[in-house]
Amino acid sequence: MLGLMQSQPLLISSLIEFAARNHGDGEIVSRRVEGDIHRYTYKDLAGRARQLANTLDGMGLAQGERVASLAWNGYRHMEMYFGVSGSGRVLHTINPRLHPEQIAWIVNHAEDKALCFDLSFLPLIQAVHAKCPQVRQWVALCDADKLPADSGIPGLISYEDWIGGQSDQYNWPLLDENTACSMCYTSGTTGNPKAALYSHRSSTLHAYAAALPDVMNLSARDSVLPVVPMFHVNAWGIPYSAALTGCKLVFPGPALDGKSVYELIEAEGVTFAAGVPTVWQMLLSHMKPGGLRFSKLNRTVIGGSACPPAMISAFQDDYGVSVLHAWGMTEMSPLGTLCTLKNKHLSLPKDEQMKILQKQGRAIYGVEMKIVNDEGKEQPWDGKAYGDLLVRGPWIIDSYYKGEGNPLVDGWFPTGDVATIDADGFMQITDRSKDVVKSGGEWISSIDIENIAMAHPAVAMAACIGVPHPKWDERPIVAVAKKPGAEVSREELLKFFEGKTAKWQIPDDVVFVDAIPLGATGKMLKTKLREQLKDYKLPTA
Amino acid sequence: MLGLMQSQPLLISSLIEFAARNHGDGEIVSRRVEGDIHRYTYKDLAGRARQLANTLDGMGLAQGERVASLAWNGYRHMEMYFGVSGSGRVLHTINPRLHPEQIAWIVNHAEDKALCFDLSFLPLIQAVHAKCPQVRQWVALCDADKLPADSGIPGLISYEDWIGGQSDQYNWPLLDENTACSMCYTSGTTGNPKAALYSHRSSTLHAYAAALPDVMNLSARDSVLPVVPMFHVNAWGIPYSAALTGCKLVFPGPALDGKSVYELIEAEGVTFAAGVPTVWQMLLSHMKPGGLRFSKLNRTVIGGSACPPAMISAFQDDYGVSVLHAWGMTEMSPLGTLCTLKNKHLSLPKDEQMKILQKQGRAIYGVEMKIVNDEGKEQPWDGKAYGDLLVRGPWIIDSYYKGEGNPLVDGWFPTGDVATIDADGFMQITDRSKDVVKSGGEWISSIDIENIAMAHPAVAMAACIGVPHPKWDERPIVAVAKKPGAEVSREELLKFFEGKTAKWQIPDDVVFVDAIPLGATGKMLKTKLREQLKDYKLPTA
Repeated sequence: MLGLMQSQPLLISSLIEFAARNHGDGEIVSRRVEGDIHRYTYKDLAGRARQLANTLDGMGLAQGERVASLAWNGYRHMEMYFGVSGSGRVLHTINPRLHPEQIAWIVNHAEDKALCFDLSFLPLIQAVHAKCPQVRQWVALCDADKLPADSGIPGLISYEDWIGGQSDQYNWPLLDENTACSMCYTSGTTGNPKAALYSHRSSTLHAYAAALPDVMNLSARDSVLPVVPMFHVNAWGIPYSAALTGCKLVFPGPALDGKSVYELIEAEGVTFAAGVPTVWQMLLSHMKPGGLRFSKLNRTVIGGSACPPAMISAFQDDYGVSVLHAWGMTEMSPLGTLCTLKNKHLSLPKDEQMKILQKQGRAIYGVEMKIVNDEGKEQPWDGKAYGDLLVRGPWIIDSYYKGEGNPLVDGWFPTGDVATIDADGFMQITDRSKDVVKSGGEWISSIDIENIAMAHPAVAMAACIGVPHPKWDERPIVAVAKKPGAEVSREELLKFFEGKTAKWQIPDDVVFVDAIPLGATGKMLKTKLREQLKDYKLPTA
Repeated sequence: MLGLMQSQPLLISSLIEFAARNHGDGEIVSRRVEGDIHRYTYKDLAGRARQLANTLDGMGLAQGERVASLAWNGYRHMEMYFGVSGSGRVLHTINPRLHPEQIAWIVNHAEDKALCFDLSFLPLIQAVHAKCPQVRQWVALCDADKLPADSGIPGLISYEDWIGGQSDQYNWPLLDENTACSMCYTSGTTGNPKAALYSHRSSTLHAYAAALPDVMNLSARDSVLPVVPMFHVNAWGIPYSAALTGCKLVFPGPALDGKSVYELIEAEGVTFAAGVPTVWQMLLSHMKPGGLRFSKLNRTVIGGSACPPAMISAFQDDYGVSVLHAWGMTEMSPLGTLCTLKNKHLSLPKDEQMKILQKQGRAIYGVEMKIVNDEGKEQPWDGKAYGDLLVRGPWIIDSYYKGEGNPLVDGWFPTGDVATIDADGFMQITDRSKDVVKSGGEWISSIDIENIAMAHPAVAMAACIGVPHPKWDERPIVAVAKKPGAEVSREELLKFFEGKTAKWQIPDDVVFVDAIPLGATGKMLKTKLREQLKDYKLPTA
């Protein structure tokens, strides 16, 4: 039909130009690897992002080629977000916590043509650079005079020398909004890592959504501290949403200890911070002894893993800071749900509100959710029925980078989580799909079983797994590591479950082990436990 | 590149399905034409929108065909927003304040196939229906038993009978997001009305943007009263943003007097209201004598015309309600700017903040602005230079319905306003492009001149226009209507300007008139004034 709306593509470059124009003097404060504080503005950021874009043009990098970062949260990393993506290349943010072998594999798989790294990661780059022959340019994210003399890395250049001679004017290309802008590898538990490839469209829509009042609630009156790393799913999209709103940005660099984070929050008037529970635990531990207070912080979003209720209470009751759960995945850009109360919840007693706030939250518009049983049949939203959680929407992947894997089921992405959803749309993850125990057509949450076992005073750690059963398909057993010097028998522990869960959910057996196998990040490795117990037989089977 | 994001189109139907699923019991409260209060939920709304979609299918209406509404803000109108657009038809919202001749012209120009109207507008429909032969179905938005027996309108049916027999299940079509979803005619001052045709994409992007913290700040904790009519640029997009956030909605129907609006605000716990200054004036006038207070209202967005500073102060100081200016146009879906303070303004003295809050505001991400002089050269953002205001973005029109008019200038839409923009991006309209006086290459704001003249105690109303001048191209003169019984001479009035504006901006002459010609809405008709003064000659020319 004739006479419609302008066809303006949704592009990353429009975010940075918007910020430079409407929030030119908006502050961006960074603690650098060197420890000092660096300050500049969105206008400066835009100028240097354009210099970087000119640098990449000068290298002859074609549109769609990958430029990698291995860096903490800071202004130069932020410049890469806009200069690399805005000019049509793909920013590949690498997680430095991966094993060097894995990093080399990822760099080669992504076919990165340039790699920019913070000097903290120099030893890592020294270890892997020879294995990454297609990287044409290694760049140290530092001042020219900080470049190490004998790094052993051929052609290593400082970022300042790399972009310094370039013009700060640039005509951003008018790309198709479905062009790729950035990518991030998932640290899958099995097989090689796979990458989610984000588009300009998906990142821009996500930037609108992430700033909404019921999500991160970002405005030009905020001072925002993303503790969540920019190498981890784009720091939950904060860099983009920040440019969209013109909020002040405060980057913590590598200093994530309680003292450093607290000092930054206070010095920069931070109103909103986002991160994982462990960082907040360090922050609270630092503040408590000295009776320290926040002067402006009023809310925090916590994701990555569920926040212990005690921490939610501490933030809210002791410090007046709202704690909101977020849930998402690398494959989801990442935000899927945020846990904010509705109008009708505001008059509820506090403990009722707390029960809601412990859930993963409600879907953001742009994300559809459903839960299904083994047959793919949709389960009711009653807060009790649970099933595999599936999602779809414009910022959720279709397939992995290079078309690897074909994850969708009838157009829906299976999250690998098992969840309930209540009538108000609040989703709660009860287990991982691969860990849930399927007994006689009913599902038993391994996490529920573990939580009950770990409440016993003699138990240090517990892991529940399903083992084959001739009649019920699977039955749960629980592996238990006792506290040093503590004693508890199999029978005592099984009795401990009574009245705490339905009778048919009580494990069939307890197996005492010296230790539950753990991964690098402290998560239980159930695959390894299953391997250890592969010859185990149920007493009743 | 392989492996990207899901290609989910942005569709109006996804908004209502999101609300039904995630905010099923969210309340929608309407004061009806009959005066009573109607209550239901987003789930009910979605079911009835699907019934309406089935009704339109049953009529055999093709995708893209127009269905018109002539209605106040209420739940049935809201059902049309989703049922008509979601099923692929185009909702044409008609302004009932237009002249009946103009309404008939518009209905024919839009080629409306069905027209649904509130019974308040029955006389209007009785007057025009015979002139609109292509309308196949006239529908009264009322219960079956309220349908007038002898309306004289062939085939008139009540809305309830029209949709009542249909299923509340419906498979919304998976449309291209650039498909038209709704349209609205502008009441242009010259020529025939032209229509802006909104798309699913533009309306959905606008729905995200309108809910942002720096825009209308809508969340599931809000109770929202759109006083701004749903026949006027989609009530500033509130129906869509409401579904996106799940906020409670409160529709005032036709009762916009101070008492009715106040009672609704209090009874329904309204936290946010949006409308034009005249409605708020009536509200404040109702509240003041009895010393009435708001219990939950905390903010209001005011648009349509600039809000008098005294009203901003009254809301803020006397009632603790924030007043935010919005600026937009029918051609802009409509939101362009909102006036919210930035972080750095929060510590300013109150009178400094007030100066900022009187401007039209900052651009929302998605709207680009520029100001240009007569040669199209961009003017600086210094808060002083002014020029024609141009905008572009994904929710701004490309051309008018049926391709009429070719408004864009190098891809930018000329707003017809003259504005300044300051270094912080705050835009202030200083005049209409057609009213600004262009003297020797410099522009003189007719509004500034009028404001000075009207500050004189003897002046009832003043209108400034430009008249031809051999040397300066144009020079300003001011037409003045004196207050009854008041006296002031030409010389006294010209002297009154001294020191209040630059010398070269002082009008060359004063012309005393009995009255300034006004339009139906109280706006000065400068075209008519120019006509009256067409034989006028400058004393110095």
